[in-house]
Amino acid sequence: MNDDLKIQFASDNTAPVLPEVWEELQRADREPRFALGYGDDPVTSEAVRLIRELFETECEVFFVFNGSAANSLALGSMTRSWHGVLCHPFSHAETDEANAPEFFTGGAKLIHVDGPAGKIDPESIPPMLERGHGIHSAKITAVTLTQATEVGAVYAQEEIRALTSLRERPGLESLRFHMDGARFANAMATLGVAPAEATWKAGISALSLGGAKNGLTATEALVFFDRDLAAEFEWRRKQGGQLASKMRYQAAPWVAVLRDGAWLRHASHANRCAQRLGKGLASIPGMELRYPVEANAAFVSMSPDVAQALHDRGWHFYPFSVARAWRFVCNWATTDEAIDALLEDARAIVATR
Amino acid sequence: MNDDLKIQFASDNTAPVLPEVWEELQRADREPRFALGYGDDPVTSEAVRLIRELFETECEVFFVFNGSAANSLALGSMTRSWHGVLCHPFSHAETDEANAPEFFTGGAKLIHVDGPAGKIDPESIPPMLERGHGIHSAKITAVTLTQATEVGAVYAQEEIRALTSLRERPGLESLRFHMDGARFANAMATLGVAPAEATWKAGISALSLGGAKNGLTATEALVFFDRDLAAEFEWRRKQGGQLASKMRYQAAPWVAVLRDGAWLRHASHANRCAQRLGKGLASIPGMELRYPVEANAAFVSMSPDVAQALHDRGWHFYPFSVARAWRFVCNWATTDEAIDALLEDARAIVATR
Amino acid sequence: MNDDLKIQFASDNTAPVLPEVWEELQRADREPRFALGYGDDPVTSEAVRLIRELFETECEVFFVFNGSAANSLALGSMTRSWHGVLCHPFSHAETDEANAPEFFTGGAKLIHVDGPAGKIDPESIPPMLERGHGIHSAKITAVTLTQATEVGAVYAQEEIRALTSLRERPGLESLRFHMDGARFANAMATLGVAPAEATWKAGISALSLGGAKNGLTATEALVFFDRDLAAEFEWRRKQGGQLASKMRYQAAPWVAVLRDGAWLRHASHANRCAQRLGKGLASIPGMELRYPVEANAAFVSMSPDVAQALHDRGWHFYPFSVARAWRFVCNWATTDEAIDALLEDARAIVATR
Amino acid sequence: MNDDLKIQFASDNTAPVLPEVWEELQRADREPRFALGYGDDPVTSEAVRLIRELFETECEVFFVFNGSAANSLALGSMTRSWHGVLCHPFSHAETDEANAPEFFTGGAKLIHVDGPAGKIDPESIPPMLERGHGIHSAKITAVTLTQATEVGAVYAQEEIRALTSLRERPGLESLRFHMDGARFANAMATLGVAPAEATWKAGISALSLGGAKNGLTATEALVFFDRDLAAEFEWRRKQGGQLASKMRYQAAPWVAVLRDGAWLRHASHANRCAQRLGKGLASIPGMELRYPVEANAAFVSMSPDVAQALHDRGWHFYPFSVARAWRFVCNWATTDEAIDALLEDARAIVATR
Repeated sequence: MNDDLKIQFASDNTAPVLPEVWEELQRADREPRFALGYGDDPVTSEAVRLIRELFETECEVFFVFNGSAANSLALGSMTRSWHGVLCHPFSHAETDEANAPEFFTGGAKLIHVDGPAGKIDPESIPPMLERGHGIHSAKITAVTLTQATEVGAVYAQEEIRALTSLRERPGLESLRFHMDGARFANAMATLGVAPAEATWKAGISALSLGGAKNGLTATEALVFFDRDLAAEFEWRRKQGGQLASKMRYQAAPWVAVLRDGAWLRHASHANRCAQRLGKGLASIPGMELRYPVEANAAFVSMSPDVAQALHDRGWHFYPFSVARAWRFVCNWATTDEAIDALLEDARAIVATR
Repeated sequence: MNDDLKIQFASDNTAPVLPEVWEELQRADREPRFALGYGDDPVTSEAVRLIRELFETECEVFFVFNGSAANSLALGSMTRSWHGVLCHPFSHAETDEANAPEFFTGGAKLIHVDGPAGKIDPESIPPMLERGHGIHSAKITAVTLTQATEVGAVYAQEEIRALTSLRERPGLESLRFHMDGARFANAMATLGVAPAEATWKAGISALSLGGAKNGLTATEALVFFDRDLAAEFEWRRKQGGQLASKMRYQAAPWVAVLRDGAWLRHASHANRCAQRLGKGLASIPGMELRYPVEANAAFVSMSPDVAQALHDRGWHFYPFSVARAWRFVCNWATTDEAIDALLEDARAIVATR
Repeated sequence: MNDDLKIQFASDNTAPVLPEVWEELQRADREPRFALGYGDDPVTSEAVRLIRELFETECEVFFVFNGSAANSLALGSMTRSWHGVLCHPFSHAETDEANAPEFFTGGAKLIHVDGPAGKIDPESIPPMLERGHGIHSAKITAVTLTQATEVGAVYAQEEIRALTSLRERPGLESLRFHMDGARFANAMATLGVAPAEATWKAGISALSLGGAKNGLTATEALVFFDRDLAAEFEWRRKQGGQLASKMRYQAAPWVAVLRDGAWLRHASHANRCAQRLGKGLASIPGMELRYPVEANAAFVSMSPDVAQALHDRGWHFYPFSVARAWRFVCNWATTDEAIDALLEDARAIVATR
Repeated sequence: MNDDLKIQFASDNTAPVLPEVWEELQRADREPRFALGYGDDPVTSEAVRLIRELFETECEVFFVFNGSAANSLALGSMTRSWHGVLCHPFSHAETDEANAPEFFTGGAKLIHVDGPAGKIDPESIPPMLERGHGIHSAKITAVTLTQATEVGAVYAQEEIRALTSLRERPGLESLRFHMDGARFANAMATLGVAPAEATWKAGISALSLGGAKNGLTATEALVFFDRDLAAEFEWRRKQGGQLASKMRYQAAPWVAVLRDGAWLRHASHANRCAQRLGKGLASIPGMELRYPVEANAAFVSMSPDVAQALHDRGWHFYPFSVARAWRFVCNWATTDEAIDALLEDARAIVATR
């Protein structure tokens, strides 16, 4: 098997761009021949319309270039620099954004609330809220949760509601909930409910709707269900270096995948591949799944020398240190052939020890 | 003439993406099938190599998503929050980035130094340097100049050197010079010298090398000739929300236009169109060029009612208030036919007054 | 005359602390013996009460350590990082705070609006408001004016109203006006009206009420007449490093000078001294007042060699470069004897040329 | 016992200012009569000299207004916005500064490393250093430790060295160590070694030397042993709103307590009081010391109703939630009489249950 193909499990973003995205990009390029910049064009309007249709609500939609920006600008809209944001210790915002949330908020503090499989346990929140020393501590005003989580688990609707229902407590009415949906498509493919049900109807204020991990180019959609959060957001996006001049090319990929449900189809494919890969790996002596496979990744424990031997055969995959596991990610372009080749190599390595 | 075509003079960014960029993007998409993220791929390596070749030096190259980001991150690398950056009052960093430079530097102050046609007069700098009150004032450590300027003028090499030679004065040895090259290609097409001559050999420390205004997708290259400025820049870019996960698609457009000199060809075309358009407009009674046309735009004075009549006929173009003029921009896709149609309409309007 | 005394005209802050301030500090120290921190003590309550009484309104009052902090935190409360603040080019916030306003606002831009003697000309504002490019430019939301100005002029009430009445224009209803009152006492001594008349009744939203320049220790009072601006300000102050743990010692000086009107008496003294000094200097051949003396400083033009000769005799005074003048400041402790000695030396120097 | 006296155990900062500080302040006020601002005066020079003498090295010394500022500006000098700072979860910087460190660093992340009694366990650091994902995570460049800790423990010299010796590992040579010494005097009184031994000779780069908690007015000294960290710090302090115009009044208290060792005497007194109080409380049935009393505070567990009964009798003391204990703090003005009264009330309350 070609070495390039052995790269694929390293990340969602190893995949090429979806063919239908290329087609739509070129359609946007031809028609209109010239277009006004910064979103004042028909392609962007259509993409926004499709996202509103998807969520069955008049949400505010802003395209940005990547997930770090989507998350950081969303948190910026929810907080001031002296505020606190509750997050899971595994969350991307905490571990993989080089302090972008702190930077874009001017200093807001990410505060850990734990729970199984990257999901925040609602019971972990109240003690944290009571812990502050008034004006001497961060004022907690927001919670960010990741759907699907960094270790491939998916929040059920009731689990989301259990978190957002904190707002029913006195003094917490204005708590905002941000969902990092870099893998929202994978989560929805698993949940099988309408996107509205798993977001604003479940109490979510804003969603970072991921594109890049699902076969799009560099484009994520920041969706504000709580429209107050969008006040002056156009300035915030511009100042944050996230306003595309030729926005039609950022919007067209969304048109491509939303028009006919392709976004969900591709995510389902990736999820199925992860299931297959996870099951296969778990069947190998000495390997174990660290988490249930609910989205497009499998987290597997194995001995360091087995991992090394797989690396030596050209397979790319990363340790996920906080979870003490190795991560294998599937994406829209993953093939059964690649999965089989990986499993075969893994079995062969284990067999010789 | 189709209304879409009447949009084209509004900005460089109304144009579609270059055909050769699409081709290269698709080549990058096919080969390799899967690629590692964040720049660790062969396409990005090739784009960096081509930029180093273009500038004949081992500069550090970082791709970012747009010009505001390139400028702001460059200034961030040159300054601390208590520093001052000298700039022309017309500069994009000052007027059109919604305080992105202040934000990304944590508070550095942009301080005006004036000069004709958007070019900084070297004589304006020393008085400004003497004006501070020690630790009570911004410590001036950087100068940003725009090539070509916001009003379509081009710095000659000697003019750049006249600025950077300030470093020969005692106490100013460490002054850094940033060049905002959103329209660097247009400037180079006019100057007709090697890019190295007009940048690092003329004392420039860092260059925002523009892609989007020259027919590329959302990608600008930040080029550090002073390599010290690149220390830890990878973190800065990541934190700033400017690190593309699938970087091959940000790099491929550069491969497309640098491989065979297309970048300069397209800029020359735009410049020639602007010359033709400027000459045509200036020949109309009551219209006057406010600046010599040295790059791809013409700035024209005309009476408000003539401007309104042109707008009424569907032509898009913007007032450029600081220059008290109307701006018409040409780009790689501008056609003689469109120029003729615009001129014809303008002549017809004026003739009837 | 003792060399230490020749330092006094260098600045308001060369003066010692007022005797009544020392007395009140020691009273606060004895009674109560122990006090809760962070403002939850009877001395702070009394100081706040006196300030509210002074302004005849239920304003929100926060003590901070110095004027840069008061100004920057006030502007922070009025702006977001993408906003613009109109200010005079002479203003302390612009020239003498090492970018503190930009830092504390996270990047808001100070934009110049000019006018005579450090006062903003209301006519200069509307063109600046029209100049922006929508979301591409700073959104102007605040104006900061200095009372008395950096060059010793005082806004009349009508002049303040002429500025704040901009809020009557459509779209400007929410414009906020900050007054930098580092020398508010000097201005009030000149104006002779009730403080309420020259502040909130004239449309001012927030005031940095200066203490240090009027004989107090390190304490300024930030007064919000527009109480909405004080929302969560306690956190902002804490995060900004401006919350005193033993606040009674920051509050007591205010009790000392507000209880019996001492604040105004001392400012009047300084103003009278400046009048006398200004008149005296202006009577010397080759010296001219650059601005009318309306507060506690005189700005005088003189030849560099005369200035040098005065420096050689031990007199401290600074050039004020933006005004091309030399600044002489009087304060509560200035004596006629010192003024006479300075004038005598000046006359003697000029006489020998 | 007077109610005011029952406030005293609430915090170090309930105490009045030391008599010798008042004397020195007034001496500074009289001599010289006038002084230049911003530290260019003889009192400030003397205070700096005394601090250098105390530490037996040519450290750089900067006075600021409070501990949050000292800590935040120190961390600002050690980090860039994408860096990480290791700290104990109990540390003041983490729990009690309303995100001031994040704000003043522009976004640096405080990362928890645990250990007993508020002291960082050196073994907890290496795993944290290995955990990052390169440029995707905060780059850890600094450690902040608190001496004495927030729960009244003191690092022995060897414990400090065990931390700083991490710099001997490859790649960690440039790790910086900041000591939050808000209660440095209390720690030194316990350790009984020369301050140099417990700071720079033990590898500390910078120290926030506390004044306010030891009987001074609002003044802390930021001491850079690693002088590189002080580069351009004067601008940083100015921009941060921490430059006192009349600095002699910020410096004089240090002269007062350093000249004859009073700083250590007062801290010893507070420590002895805490010992006595701790022992007394621990002897009461149902009360237990949560940590050894090594500085000036005792952390005691007791049942909520006993705590409430003490509060009802007028005693002020706070729960310290992270340590699940009640905190009682002694200071220079604590008296045996007050301790006895508190113990007596506590015994009486417990006796009646």
